[in-house]
Amino acid sequence: MFFASDNGAPCPPQVMDALMQANQGPAMPYGNDPATTRAVQAVRDTLEAPEAAVFFVATGTAANALALATLCPPWGAVFCHEGAHVQQDECGAPEFYSGAKLLTVAGDHGRMAPAALDAAIRGQGVRVVHSVQPGAVTLTDVTEAGTLYTPDQIAALARVAHAHGLPLHLDGARFANAVAATGASPAELTWKAGVDVLSFGGTKGGLMGAEAVVFFDPARAWEFELRRKRGGHLFSKNRYLAAQFDGWLQDGLWLALARHANAMNARLSQGLAALPGCALVHPAEANITFATLPEAAHARLKAAGARYYDMGQGRARLVTSWVTTAAEVDAFLAAAAG
Amino acid sequence: MFFASDNGAPCPPQVMDALMQANQGPAMPYGNDPATTRAVQAVRDTLEAPEAAVFFVATGTAANALALATLCPPWGAVFCHEGAHVQQDECGAPEFYSGAKLLTVAGDHGRMAPAALDAAIRGQGVRVVHSVQPGAVTLTDVTEAGTLYTPDQIAALARVAHAHGLPLHLDGARFANAVAATGASPAELTWKAGVDVLSFGGTKGGLMGAEAVVFFDPARAWEFELRRKRGGHLFSKNRYLAAQFDGWLQDGLWLALARHANAMNARLSQGLAALPGCALVHPAEANITFATLPEAAHARLKAAGARYYDMGQGRARLVTSWVTTAAEVDAFLAAAAG
Amino acid sequence: MFFASDNGAPCPPQVMDALMQANQGPAMPYGNDPATTRAVQAVRDTLEAPEAAVFFVATGTAANALALATLCPPWGAVFCHEGAHVQQDECGAPEFYSGAKLLTVAGDHGRMAPAALDAAIRGQGVRVVHSVQPGAVTLTDVTEAGTLYTPDQIAALARVAHAHGLPLHLDGARFANAVAATGASPAELTWKAGVDVLSFGGTKGGLMGAEAVVFFDPARAWEFELRRKRGGHLFSKNRYLAAQFDGWLQDGLWLALARHANAMNARLSQGLAALPGCALVHPAEANITFATLPEAAHARLKAAGARYYDMGQGRARLVTSWVTTAAEVDAFLAAAAG
Amino acid sequence: MFFASDNGAPCPPQVMDALMQANQGPAMPYGNDPATTRAVQAVRDTLEAPEAAVFFVATGTAANALALATLCPPWGAVFCHEGAHVQQDECGAPEFYSGAKLLTVAGDHGRMAPAALDAAIRGQGVRVVHSVQPGAVTLTDVTEAGTLYTPDQIAALARVAHAHGLPLHLDGARFANAVAATGASPAELTWKAGVDVLSFGGTKGGLMGAEAVVFFDPARAWEFELRRKRGGHLFSKNRYLAAQFDGWLQDGLWLALARHANAMNARLSQGLAALPGCALVHPAEANITFATLPEAAHARLKAAGARYYDMGQGRARLVTSWVTTAAEVDAFLAAAAG
Repeated sequence: MFFASDNGAPCPPQVMDALMQANQGPAMPYGNDPATTRAVQAVRDTLEAPEAAVFFVATGTAANALALATLCPPWGAVFCHEGAHVQQDECGAPEFYSGAKLLTVAGDHGRMAPAALDAAIRGQGVRVVHSVQPGAVTLTDVTEAGTLYTPDQIAALARVAHAHGLPLHLDGARFANAVAATGASPAELTWKAGVDVLSFGGTKGGLMGAEAVVFFDPARAWEFELRRKRGGHLFSKNRYLAAQFDGWLQDGLWLALARHANAMNARLSQGLAALPGCALVHPAEANITFATLPEAAHARLKAAGARYYDMGQGRARLVTSWVTTAAEVDAFLAAAAG
Repeated sequence: MFFASDNGAPCPPQVMDALMQANQGPAMPYGNDPATTRAVQAVRDTLEAPEAAVFFVATGTAANALALATLCPPWGAVFCHEGAHVQQDECGAPEFYSGAKLLTVAGDHGRMAPAALDAAIRGQGVRVVHSVQPGAVTLTDVTEAGTLYTPDQIAALARVAHAHGLPLHLDGARFANAVAATGASPAELTWKAGVDVLSFGGTKGGLMGAEAVVFFDPARAWEFELRRKRGGHLFSKNRYLAAQFDGWLQDGLWLALARHANAMNARLSQGLAALPGCALVHPAEANITFATLPEAAHARLKAAGARYYDMGQGRARLVTSWVTTAAEVDAFLAAAAG
Repeated sequence: MFFASDNGAPCPPQVMDALMQANQGPAMPYGNDPATTRAVQAVRDTLEAPEAAVFFVATGTAANALALATLCPPWGAVFCHEGAHVQQDECGAPEFYSGAKLLTVAGDHGRMAPAALDAAIRGQGVRVVHSVQPGAVTLTDVTEAGTLYTPDQIAALARVAHAHGLPLHLDGARFANAVAATGASPAELTWKAGVDVLSFGGTKGGLMGAEAVVFFDPARAWEFELRRKRGGHLFSKNRYLAAQFDGWLQDGLWLALARHANAMNARLSQGLAALPGCALVHPAEANITFATLPEAAHARLKAAGARYYDMGQGRARLVTSWVTTAAEVDAFLAAAAG
Repeated sequence: MFFASDNGAPCPPQVMDALMQANQGPAMPYGNDPATTRAVQAVRDTLEAPEAAVFFVATGTAANALALATLCPPWGAVFCHEGAHVQQDECGAPEFYSGAKLLTVAGDHGRMAPAALDAAIRGQGVRVVHSVQPGAVTLTDVTEAGTLYTPDQIAALARVAHAHGLPLHLDGARFANAVAATGASPAELTWKAGVDVLSFGGTKGGLMGAEAVVFFDPARAWEFELRRKRGGHLFSKNRYLAAQFDGWLQDGLWLALARHANAMNARLSQGLAALPGCALVHPAEANITFATLPEAAHARLKAAGARYYDMGQGRARLVTSWVTTAAEVDAFLAAAAG
């Protein structure tokens, strides 16, 4: 009964196989190797973006911080949801890399509304030299509340950002789950909706530690490369990052894994919602459930060895992954029900 | 004939096995897992340092930059050799992380002399508020020139640093090769000689991408953890960094691999030194050879498909690794000889 | 009718005289001069703080940013009111100097409540390595809303900060107005209430451009000096900063000027409150009035040449200074009344 | 006998008068005042640069650091002479503001030679992502050795910089002395020779603390304004910075003062060169003399109360200013002669 995080899941065998295949003899370092070339192409194909600049890093925090630093000047403001990972869970990495200031926008269930974003930008934009200048907008999808944006919702936010001359970044730490859950194509959720730069997360979807940063317009690719090196995020043996991604994207594996995780979450959230005294805090649209449980249920679950994030005040955060089983979900529900 | 870099080598099977073993079921993220506990202990045992604080990161640049940022304040100077990796090859990462200024010390064959270091510190130390303040000293062993320090030489530099109140960092990107070549113990080359913090390199020694940062005094461990996170270098699935290190340190594998690389380099450098028109630029004491070759030899080598770093003006940098074979060396020598 | 800002006022003749007196012959640079020694002593005497470390800079933004950088580590959070100058009006200078993240606390009329501060710190404090760590608290008095803290209110906030191990900084850009309005002594509003570091503003109180940063505990004085130099804020001819402060503090001039400004503001705010269709937005307790005026009043005032900050939606910000006259106030009120 | 620094001189009466004239009644803050408009125009007229963007700051370190931060990206290298003020005497301020790395170029008597600069840039330029990228060049005139560049020498360096696509900054902390000593026009020493940005020093030339940063191409003016604010260097009462400059530039006062300082230095250096046992270390071409004196001369000078910078090993640095008198020089020479 492991619902602590999708970061706790192991890697699927296909990814391990890809690593094994990449581990054949010497290869030129720093990305000048065939595995990197192949993985870059796989990302472009997946996103229907043949011109995109694609870079691999090992952590989601690095992907977001480096992307935002490339998009926003040091005297700029990055607008994000008040619960965003970049605001809450990266120990100031986006600010460290960019020098920028994060300004938060409220919104129900982890989503920014276009009007709220517009108001926030205007509130800042009317100021003069004394204020940080609007610099970029970043969204998260799947949101930190476990909810989703539709392509239209993303497009509406992109229109607001672009109307103010701001680029739009998408933190896709769980992008696979978002694609799987919405049924939209990767392109529809990104560049077709106006996303300029994507943090394409692999780690939470089953990789050891690999994320792709994708610039749909490659104009600032060289700057990104320098920032990545300067941040210590350029792997000498880049093939091992690339191979993970390549193995994961082959034959739709990444989406199959995400669909499974989402299905397990649906089973879990529906089961919890049906229990007396339990309630969902947010719509559980992807692979995360936020629920309120009676204290007795918490006690039973802990006694049964269930691992999850107890947020206090009766709240639990439960995350499913590609290794979550239906039996595990059912055992959790049984323990919760008592 | 691959002598371009030890960063080009694949991983030995024992390391891949360790990754496979770590890939069993869910584990708590961010280092709260058994693989990390075991690897930390393996590093401590290897260094005879039971109290040391040990942290894993994926790149050598991250290890150095984070270590120096923890040791040196933003208004400080880090003293290093003029050819040091931190000065020449990290695109300003140490300055980015620390805010400090690197001040270089000259020295033959990649080594700093104690008197030269002392003079550099004194030259800075006599200044007042207008000058950056002496903050830390960093050595590299194996040096960038492919030479070594003896434990006594390190101790002499440590005495200079400590006499000025400065901590001593050792960039051990090729620490395995240094241990193997000197016959000194890991402890003798580090804390017993006065080293305060070690970047214990694994990547050049055969790992996918894993380095350990070791604080022999754990007082600043929490600060380091925050800096690591803030830099985007904390792996959620830390077990995969740890497992690499653990597999590599078991049963002396790391030293066996390094001994092989060093032996291949000795065969190569001795062969080159004996060729007419060839000369070594630096003593080839570990796994790197710098040599001057006739242009005709360069032409023959390239025609034969040899991969190495052509530095211009007849100079070549040649690096051996755990996968270099005697046949490969002999083929290189034959092509060079013509 | 100049109510645009107290930054628009000229310098009183006593300050110009002090500059003239400091302008006699050569003096050692960088603060090693008699005028600096005298001004430092005057600040200490004013604050009844004989051991305090006192440094002069030219702008309030520099004073705040350098003070906070000395108090809060780069991975830290500075807690401030959501309307604070450091958050809204310094273009990210506190973040630039400190690397820290500002986290805001709501509160009526520009004041933080102890319970709200405590909740904000606890909300952050329960997090682990993923979150910036509580680092410092900063208050503003006179607040940006033109209101005041009593010594007891400051002490209550200091108790919260100190209970969490955080130092308390006071942005006293209008400290003179606060002292004059409360009748509390400078010591009672600062160290006696638990303030650790004070930005003692002089510019808004009548100086050309001079602020004192006061560390009641001098332990980090040398670090501050290095940060000041590194920020380009160490004046070579420091005597001219010091002389301004010295002239201003002599014979209670600074408080006499502030009392006058406060009195003019009282006349203005009371007059406005009595006008039909006008209302105060915040209690006008020092030298700033926020008021809502009918659009017709705005039109008449602008036609009459009144200078003030039109905030939109009928709101005006009006600031009085040591040169504001009763006639000017009355003319403003007459124009507003129509 | 004050030869410690030109930073020790007071302000001439014309500058104090200009401050008094600027001190009449309220004025809009942050540079939106008539004094600033007039001073900007005076700087443009002086430099024959009607389109230039002109900004005032209070210290030379701020001027240099902000200018270089605007010119050079964080992953860039700023090339400077090894003895440059930015390298030696600003406590890392240029790096703090820019994030860039300073790379030094050797050169006799404080001057860079074009070939040496070219070699330094090429040495860096051939590197790839691992190296900081060439970003900007900065010269100092008057150099830290007290020597001068001719317009042709500056033009030769500008050609090197521009051939590599790098902008050229001139640290003109003693620009007045350089103009006075060379007889070249301000335009000939700057934009006509290829200088892109000038730190136009006023403080060492007689001001309280005022420097102008001049962008001959105003394209990056807004970025500079934001950087200045973010650094805490935007004066609310900007008129007092501007008035100093305006008063100083009127009727050629600035050059008259510099000519006097230079003449006193010539008298001093020629007198010293004629003394037995004394020798000039560098040609004393402006207002600074570096000389070697017998220890007995040092002893006599100190006994006589002479103030100067004793650099050790018999060396003295002696600086003249607008208040240095011939009698003072002669008294120094007499004491030195014994």
